[in-house]
Amino acid sequence: MISDYRCFFCFARAFEKLITRHGFSVEEGNLFTHEMISLFFKKWGSLTMPEFSREMHYILRRHSGNPDPYSTEKKFSNDQALEMVPELMEIIGNSPDKFSTALRIAIAGNIVDFAANDDFNLKETVNKALSSDLAIDHSTELRNRIRKAGQVLYLGDNAGEIVFDRLFIENIGHGDLTFAVRGGPAINDVTMDDAIYTGMTEAAGVISTGYDAPSVIPEKSSETFRELFRKADVIISKGQGNLEGLIQLNDDRIFFLLMAKCETVAEYLKVPRGSKVVVNPQLME
Amino acid sequence: MISDYRCFFCFARAFEKLITRHGFSVEEGNLFTHEMISLFFKKWGSLTMPEFSREMHYILRRHSGNPDPYSTEKKFSNDQALEMVPELMEIIGNSPDKFSTALRIAIAGNIVDFAANDDFNLKETVNKALSSDLAIDHSTELRNRIRKAGQVLYLGDNAGEIVFDRLFIENIGHGDLTFAVRGGPAINDVTMDDAIYTGMTEAAGVISTGYDAPSVIPEKSSETFRELFRKADVIISKGQGNLEGLIQLNDDRIFFLLMAKCETVAEYLKVPRGSKVVVNPQLME
Repeated sequence: MISDYRCFFCFARAFEKLITRHGFSVEEGNLFTHEMISLFFKKWGSLTMPEFSREMHYILRRHSGNPDPYSTEKKFSNDQALEMVPELMEIIGNSPDKFSTALRIAIAGNIVDFAANDDFNLKETVNKALSSDLAIDHSTELRNRIRKAGQVLYLGDNAGEIVFDRLFIENIGHGDLTFAVRGGPAINDVTMDDAIYTGMTEAAGVISTGYDAPSVIPEKSSETFRELFRKADVIISKGQGNLEGLIQLNDDRIFFLLMAKCETVAEYLKVPRGSKVVVNPQLME
Repeated sequence: MISDYRCFFCFARAFEKLITRHGFSVEEGNLFTHEMISLFFKKWGSLTMPEFSREMHYILRRHSGNPDPYSTEKKFSNDQALEMVPELMEIIGNSPDKFSTALRIAIAGNIVDFAANDDFNLKETVNKALSSDLAIDHSTELRNRIRKAGQVLYLGDNAGEIVFDRLFIENIGHGDLTFAVRGGPAINDVTMDDAIYTGMTEAAGVISTGYDAPSVIPEKSSETFRELFRKADVIISKGQGNLEGLIQLNDDRIFFLLMAKCETVAEYLKVPRGSKVVVNPQLME
């Protein structure tokens, strides 16, 4: 399990902001915070961070009545990313290696993450991603494996980011690729609404995992999704949340594409914080 | 009890910084953080914030082996304040109302607080305090009560701040005034070492409370201190910590002098955050 005490403090920061945003009274804030402390006290060491996140958001929902606290940010992220599409398509089109360029853009899109950090610059991140190296680069193997694959499963992560995933998927050009979205609101993660809004449904088959944690947790997912997960020849997993949910499977079909946005994940991958990586567990040292 | 969920998040911020500062390993950080969560889970609603703070610092001490994590800041604060003494003495000396000016300077010194916020500007705060109104001002009553008092007890708060307390005490000019320090290291609060280092021992009698919470908690204090507390005619209580420990006594001998540095205390006093106040419980609305 990729998690340590720093995740708790990261959660505390995120949920303190959400308490403020929801305009909780002091009494509501007390009740919510005590439930948060209670959850961490009782489940420390037994839940993964995406599972904690799901539980915490359910508690928040019960207190606030708001099932989707990041809906505004999600729309903003999608719109911001959609605006960049013509420019990015030109960059990819003029590139000598379209797959590699589109892959870097897709990873750069992983910067959109209101849970870890709501202060990011999408355009700057894309420019950086295009000019800098991947800290771990198993993309050649990924490309070879996609070429031979009968079925590809692409596990989505955040709103906004999904637009760049679409550009990458269009450049993968695989005939049987399915994009997976969360089964319901989970932080700013993509749901079916985002897939429709951003045109992902036109670029690939889209499926819901059937579970609303900010990660793919196969045993909690729908039977349909699990069947697809079992049958896929290559699985492209975007972002930290999916890494946290899937890394313990040690499944060599999975390629994790992400920015290491926090120290905990960066240390796990043995890369500097902020690094962009394409990692296959089999090829890890 | 002046405390709510915001205090928990404030604690989380402070102790995350301390974990980093002490260079804890991930495993030590995990153990410490779980003990923190456990303490809050078990004692929520039953301990005051200064008591929580004391417990947390004991846990930190056990993990770090460092009994006084703020010793460097304390020396820095004392030195910084001592450097300002000639200038402040001149300001007080030239003032038409020396008591009032020295009192404002003493309250401004309350900005020194590494637990609540380690990013403050002492000189700027003093200048502001001299030119702005007190949000609650029971200082005329304080002055009258001191005039008639046989014994005055002055409850110290932070290092650095103690230097300005000394200037105020010298201007109070009472023949039987005792300054109380904490019984041992508690955040950046004053101990006997600070009283000696800053010359407080030359300006007043100095006594230890005999207890090392960042507040005065009479029932936990030494018998000598409690006797003095019982007999005092006027008690000047500096800072938020002392307010949190003493407010529930509803003791009309106590005048609380402080800056309301956080929302929780500011709301309790019904003043804007950052306000400077002289409050007597009897005179509160």
